[in-house]
Amino acid sequence: MALRAKVLYDFHSENPGEISISENELVTLFSEEELEGWLEGENSRGEAGLFPASYVEIIRDHITSNTNNNGFSSPKTKALPPTQTSFTSSDSQSQRGLGAGSGGSGGGSFHTSQGSDDDWDDDWDDSSPATDVPQGLGGTPPLYPVTTSLPARRGSSQQHQQQAKSSATVGRNLNRFSTFVKSGGEAFLLGEASAFVKDGDRICVVMGKHGPEWQEDPYPFTCTIDDPTKQTKFKGMKSYMSYGLTPTHTNVQVNRRYKHFDWLYARLVERFPVISVPHLPEKQATGRFEEDFISKRRKGLIWWMNHMTSHPVLARCDVFQHFLTCGADEKAWKQGKRKAERDELVGANFFLTISTPDVPLDLQEVESKIEGFKTFTKRMDENIVIVNTTINEFARKQMAGFKKEYQKVGQSFKLLGQAFELDQQAYSAGLNKAIAYTGEAYEAIGEYFAEQPRQDLDPISDLLDLYRGHLANFPDIIHVQKGALTKVKDCPKQEGELHDRCNIISCATLAEIQHFHRTRVRDFRSQMQHHLRQQIGFFQKITAKLEDALQRYDDE
Amino acid sequence: MALRAKVLYDFHSENPGEISISENELVTLFSEEELEGWLEGENSRGEAGLFPASYVEIIRDHITSNTNNNGFSSPKTKALPPTQTSFTSSDSQSQRGLGAGSGGSGGGSFHTSQGSDDDWDDDWDDSSPATDVPQGLGGTPPLYPVTTSLPARRGSSQQHQQQAKSSATVGRNLNRFSTFVKSGGEAFLLGEASAFVKDGDRICVVMGKHGPEWQEDPYPFTCTIDDPTKQTKFKGMKSYMSYGLTPTHTNVQVNRRYKHFDWLYARLVERFPVISVPHLPEKQATGRFEEDFISKRRKGLIWWMNHMTSHPVLARCDVFQHFLTCGADEKAWKQGKRKAERDELVGANFFLTISTPDVPLDLQEVESKIEGFKTFTKRMDENIVIVNTTINEFARKQMAGFKKEYQKVGQSFKLLGQAFELDQQAYSAGLNKAIAYTGEAYEAIGEYFAEQPRQDLDPISDLLDLYRGHLANFPDIIHVQKGALTKVKDCPKQEGELHDRCNIISCATLAEIQHFHRTRVRDFRSQMQHHLRQQIGFFQKITAKLEDALQRYDDE
Repeated sequence: MALRAKVLYDFHSENPGEISISENELVTLFSEEELEGWLEGENSRGEAGLFPASYVEIIRDHITSNTNNNGFSSPKTKALPPTQTSFTSSDSQSQRGLGAGSGGSGGGSFHTSQGSDDDWDDDWDDSSPATDVPQGLGGTPPLYPVTTSLPARRGSSQQHQQQAKSSATVGRNLNRFSTFVKSGGEAFLLGEASAFVKDGDRICVVMGKHGPEWQEDPYPFTCTIDDPTKQTKFKGMKSYMSYGLTPTHTNVQVNRRYKHFDWLYARLVERFPVISVPHLPEKQATGRFEEDFISKRRKGLIWWMNHMTSHPVLARCDVFQHFLTCGADEKAWKQGKRKAERDELVGANFFLTISTPDVPLDLQEVESKIEGFKTFTKRMDENIVIVNTTINEFARKQMAGFKKEYQKVGQSFKLLGQAFELDQQAYSAGLNKAIAYTGEAYEAIGEYFAEQPRQDLDPISDLLDLYRGHLANFPDIIHVQKGALTKVKDCPKQEGELHDRCNIISCATLAEIQHFHRTRVRDFRSQMQHHLRQQIGFFQKITAKLEDALQRYDDE
Repeated sequence: MALRAKVLYDFHSENPGEISISENELVTLFSEEELEGWLEGENSRGEAGLFPASYVEIIRDHITSNTNNNGFSSPKTKALPPTQTSFTSSDSQSQRGLGAGSGGSGGGSFHTSQGSDDDWDDDWDDSSPATDVPQGLGGTPPLYPVTTSLPARRGSSQQHQQQAKSSATVGRNLNRFSTFVKSGGEAFLLGEASAFVKDGDRICVVMGKHGPEWQEDPYPFTCTIDDPTKQTKFKGMKSYMSYGLTPTHTNVQVNRRYKHFDWLYARLVERFPVISVPHLPEKQATGRFEEDFISKRRKGLIWWMNHMTSHPVLARCDVFQHFLTCGADEKAWKQGKRKAERDELVGANFFLTISTPDVPLDLQEVESKIEGFKTFTKRMDENIVIVNTTINEFARKQMAGFKKEYQKVGQSFKLLGQAFELDQQAYSAGLNKAIAYTGEAYEAIGEYFAEQPRQDLDPISDLLDLYRGHLANFPDIIHVQKGALTKVKDCPKQEGELHDRCNIISCATLAEIQHFHRTRVRDFRSQMQHHLRQQIGFFQKITAKLEDALQRYDDE
């Protein structure tokens, strides 16, 4: 009997090779094997081709399972379509309402997804459209190709585990979906975390001049990202961009696709509950081979990489090192991938890896610092939205209005020169040429204005996008720390151990905040300098052009 | 019996001291003596005060005369209100439609008026409102205070004279209102001009490298115009601006009011039929004591003076010298004024003063040159209207849009700095200050943009205004020369004398065209240089400000 599947959601073919399928339609599958999240088959109208695996349910003898079933047994699973964003991230995303009304480039949005070993090797494709469609609850078709995010799964499995062996005297939070709970912060605080921590996994928080900070990476490195190259596969029907990464500590180039970054991102988010993992540049379904988008994504990835390599904890972690150094050997890659996905030191266990300074922090002081930082991030977030809107508008004005004005002036001078050229007397000729040249100079200046924003405003906008991502992370980070503090205050009995564990969370949080400030000051200083240098160069170029024009009047 | 007058037009009092009067109302005059074109009296409602003399008709025993009656006996006189613009000028004005759709500062418009000895000393006042109201035919109240322009009067009296002794074999033009006729060009060509020409009045056209040109002024000079001072008179009810003029050849300052310039202008226009007398800057009734207007008029007068003193014929003529050199001695002034107004060498007789090069010009060549110049002026006129519109719009954009954009960027940077200031760690402080300073720098640059047009666009606009005036003059000048050429072609019989006289007109016309081109090349070269130097200075100022801001980031 031919393998059949029931269609769960309408799908309209958008590319050659795809076929449209309708809800409740029965389709015949040519194979059960997915190709990058797609199945090949024939619809009821006899059309053969590809459709998203997640849009159908394979009909089997005994069990009916969504092909993307990932272990969720909650009755919600069916109604809530699989999401490619972790709960944590999508929470913070919706809390902040990032990008709303900003008119900016929406750099705050990001995407994470996580493949299982099975579908990893099948390589889902970048061509999946509309991955950033807003997701409602129930009835909404899933984004394809997509898998449920691992952080959520881990979170919930952990939760089950915790509930199973719940015996601590300190009460658990009622809201089992709070970040404090999901991150593992609560489990750690209650002493429920346990894992074997190797020396290499140990992360040190040291007491610096300005408070707790991550111990510096003794072997700092950076990593370049080359221009991506377009690759095609899957009989040429699907194509993707491949980025060449060259870390300075190996100096060996490895090739990675956006989905590899995406996978890595998901690993990092689940691994480090109080570290602000830089957001990846926006995933874009359409026009992603267009030069502008490629250039913008590459710039975004460069910033992302910069923040990865300059973070003492993130830079050194195994999964990132695997990502940066594993070559074309598929087996080695798969091994590292599996290891990362089975890493025990995630969530609650992450806190087990942290060594703190000898003297515990003053709770009051921590609380006040965290409050201050909360105010800081709120204001910074509000104001960089304004800055971003303003400079994007300024860029638009320069590329349109300013350019047009200078060019109109240039053209009118040229018209003046043309009128004057009707007088061909010797003493006129020099002036006529000079005026014509002045007209051209103004037209050129118009072009300068149009080209300039790319040099000195876009980079600021890129930076702001990255920071909007960080600012979106911090509410969760602060939430974890606050959850711990609250718990400690509520239950003064278990002071000793609870305090120690709370101190670990506080140290890590303050170290991360310190790192944020340091990086922020470094980044904004260098970006403002870059901007001003570019602007100076720009106005000098205009001046030179005008001086050139002025000289033409000396001809007489 | 009290002196009474009948009101010809409604007048609504606009200033203290004035009274309203209605058409057909009878008013009682306190005195027949006009004060600057105003009479003092009492209206039928018993209100006493000033009203325009030209709005009433004094009731006498035998004759009914408009107080401004100037010798016109045509029945038209009553219906056509007195105009302050000469026929010639208003013709050319309407022909060109100058300023229509230009959106510019309307520099093409100008005003001339001419006082008789009687009302001169009464000093009509600058405060006459709305002197540039468009004038319809009939029914429209006259502009006050005002007198009929002398050129028209002379033209028509000459015309009568010509008709009286008409005996030439060459026919007269049928259109007695053509410029060729009114300027005296026809009369001269027909040998009807006669006057005694002193050596000092002789004007030489010499053959230069580029054709006929005015003999250079052996004693060139310039004349400065100081900032005007406000004077009040007439019991403080009327006030006016007085300009201090200091010509370099006497180095003695004389004080002149706008109406003196106006009077001089009228003399020059009637005196020199084929010379382009520079137009005076626009007369403006309201807001004329406002700084902007005063500054604009002064700049216009400076340009006007520049063109007067650099014209070999205009600079040397008696009436201009009288204007420049006559001091506060009222008697001397009145004497020179009377002499100028009785000058016989106006119109047709002007051509008697011209000496030409020995070899007469080739008619064909003259015709082709004139045709070329006609095309030139047409194109130049069209194109400077576009330039003027463009740079005025550009100025507006810089003063509004550009300024706003830079200031918005500055403000957004300041907001960023303010957010950052919430983090008061030592390593943040330098950056915070630098960003705040950068914000201020951008706000300052916004101001620079707003202030700049005054420096480098307004002067071009002023220059274009002046040239639009010249371009408005040339159709009449060309008309005179063409009228002469046509007449010569029509009547080959009288070749000898007619040709000689036509040659004189051609030489004068070409000399004036040559002068126009020379002045134009000189003015536009220097103005474009000025503009570019200003622009360079402007962009250097911006660069310096940005460099200053950049340095603030080195503080760490």
